[in-house]
Formats: sequence, C-alpha cells, structure tokens
Amino acid sequence: MPRPSQRAAIVDAALRCFAELGYDATRVKHIADKAGVAESALYRHFPSKEAIAQELYAEFLRSYAEKLLNLAGSDQKPEGKLRALVALILDTYREEPDAFIFVLFNTSRRLPSLPAGTVYPLDVIESIIIEAQSAGVVRDGQTNLLAAILLGAVQQPVVLATLGRPGALNLLGDRGYDVIITEAALAAVGRTPC
Amino acid sequence: MPRPSQRAAIVDAALRCFAELGYDATRVKHIADKAGVAESALYRHFPSKEAIAQELYAEFLRSYAEKLLNLAGSDQKPEGKLRALVALILDTYREEPDAFIFVLFNTSRRLPSLPAGTVYPLDVIESIIIEAQSAGVVRDGQTNLLAAILLGAVQQPVVLATLGRPGALNLLGDRGYDVIITEAALAAVGRTPC
Repeated sequence: MPRPSQRAAIVDAALRCFAELGYDATRVKHIADKAGVAESALYRHFPSKEAIAQELYAEFLRSYAEKLLNLAGSDQKPEGKLRALVALILDTYREEPDAFIFVLFNTSRRLPSLPAGTVYPLDVIESIIIEAQSAGVVRDGQTNLLAAILLGAVQQPVVLATLGRPGALNLLGDRGYDVIITEAALAAVGRTPC
Repeated sequence: MPRPSQRAAIVDAALRCFAELGYDATRVKHIADKAGVAESALYRHFPSKEAIAQELYAEFLRSYAEKLLNLAGSDQKPEGKLRALVALILDTYREEPDAFIFVLFNTSRRLPSLPAGTVYPLDVIESIIIEAQSAGVVRDGQTNLLAAILLGAVQQPVVLATLGRPGALNLLGDRGYDVIITEAALAAVGRTPC
C-alpha cells in the first residue's frame, strides 16, 4: 500500500520542481528524484504530473479557503476584517510562496478540474465585502467586482516581487510594504472620500 | 524566402491555439493547421512553439508599451492621465483579449527572453505614477509598488472575467464596469481622503 508520507513528499517535491524548472519542463523523473523515491513508487500514488498538480491546486485552495472562512466567520468589525483579510493574503504568500504563485498565477493554463463543492477564495472574499458594504464601509457596486479589485491590489505587488528584476520588491523579507498595500486596498473598495 | 504575411498568420494561429487548447497541449501541427500552412512552411519561420510564443510576447509588449508611452508623453493633467491609463489597460484587453491573457497572466511560466531594451508596461505606468505623485495627486510611497497596486486593481477584474464560471464578469461586452474600476484604481493610489 502506498505510504501517505511519501505522497506528501511527492507533492512537495513537485512544487519545488515547478518553481525551479517551470511546469512545462518538469518531468516525473525530476519529481521522483527530488522526493527521493523511485519512479515506480511515485506512480503508485499518482498517474501523471498533471495529477500531482491537481492535488497541489486542491490542497492549497482548500487550506487557503479554510483560513478565509475562519476570518469571514470571526466577530471582528467589518473594517478590521478587511484589514485582517489583506494581512491573511500576504501571510499566505509568505508561508508558501511557491504554492501561492503556482496556484494563483496560472490563469492561462487550464485549471485541473477541482472537486465539486470546492470553495474559491474569491467567493469568501466577496462574502467579507458584502458584509462590509452592508455596514457602509465599502462603496456601492457589484460585490464580486469589488472583491476582485481588492484582491488585485494586494496580489499584484506579489507578482512584482516575483519578477526578479532590478527594483523588484522584497515582500518576503520586508513587512514595511504592508501598511501601504493595506491602505491602498481598503481605499480601493472604500466609500468615496468626502 | 519565407513570406511575412505567413509569419503573422502563424503567430495569430498560435495565439488562438494557446487560448483554445492551452499552451502545454498545443503542438506545432495544430498551429500549422490553424494557420493553413504546411508544417515545413512553419519551420521556415520558427524553429519551435517556444519561438512563436517568444515573438507573441515581444510583439504584444512592444505594442502595449508604445501605447502607454504615448499616453505618458501626452500633455494631459496627471489625474486625467491616470483615468486614461485605466481606460487604456481595459481597451488593450478588449482589443486583444487572448494576447492580453496569454502574455500577462503567465507569471509562473518562465518568460521567454525578451530583446534587450524591452520597455515593460509596469515601468511606463510607474512613470505616470511618479508624475502624479509630484503633482500631489497620488499618495506617498514607493512608486513601483503603487504602480503594481493600480495595475492589479484593474487587471484582477479581467482575471475574474476570464474564469468562465457563473457570476463571472462580462467585461468584454459591458463597459458599465469601467466607472467603478476607474474610481477604485484611482482611490487605491490616491491621496488619503480628508
């Protein structure tokens, strides 16, 4: 019977290969080598590279959505919840930068099919926006659009941080940018100023 | 000698294949069939799928940066320029949605190497932010970070529009969202309200 710990090691190794070599160039052999298992052992867990990527997606989104749902259900006031939301997104990037980038910045690649009932992070963010809009803290407008605007204002700095060219942000090592990202994201969805 | 019109048809066909099949699943044969040329004719223009993708990247970024540079050099006032910037980004998506998505939402794939001297859209957007900051229209803060925040607030709705799931935005067909995107993006980088 395949060992569960091996399964987790394979998924983790795949993520590191995707980050280092790119998804396209990664072969099952690279993943097996990185995980320290034989290719035959890998195939007892997963039929293909695509299947490993699918597990990566599903597991990352499940864990991310769970954290977001906990925040959405907390008893903070709406503005505090919006601030905590921005911190949660940046912390999730800092905890698992490779997974964050692989899963969230792959829109042009066809997403692997996710299990029915998958909770999407954007939907939870929208629920926080809806609550804040009802409380008068967020501007009028379609709530999934406002959720996307807030998310973009927080995530695009992460994209800039990953470009690896001169002048790129060091978001991983420096929390000094968080204040401006938080203020800007809240202003983007906030009520229009007097 | 390879015909130039054939070259453009091949790049255009490749883009449509990438959008329909995904980049990974696209083979040179698909591109040749879609372009209506023999594979041997395609290979007179490009050695590989990767080379076609590289031309797509370079050509899209060149044209996008040119439009941005024209705007940056125009004699509009800073706030008008910021508004025109948001419109330019959304219009660029509407004019070439497949290219916009393929080139800009592929951060986890290794970018093909671009010609030296390539002007990146974010750098031009930063120059507009710098001018607006000097004029007191944009909040204090590191200008490439503010440029990324503004760009994210405009681009993430495009991501939402491409997800193709219930509730996704129809940004291509409906300009009714542009007002809220513009106001939100300007508020994100704007001076903190009184």
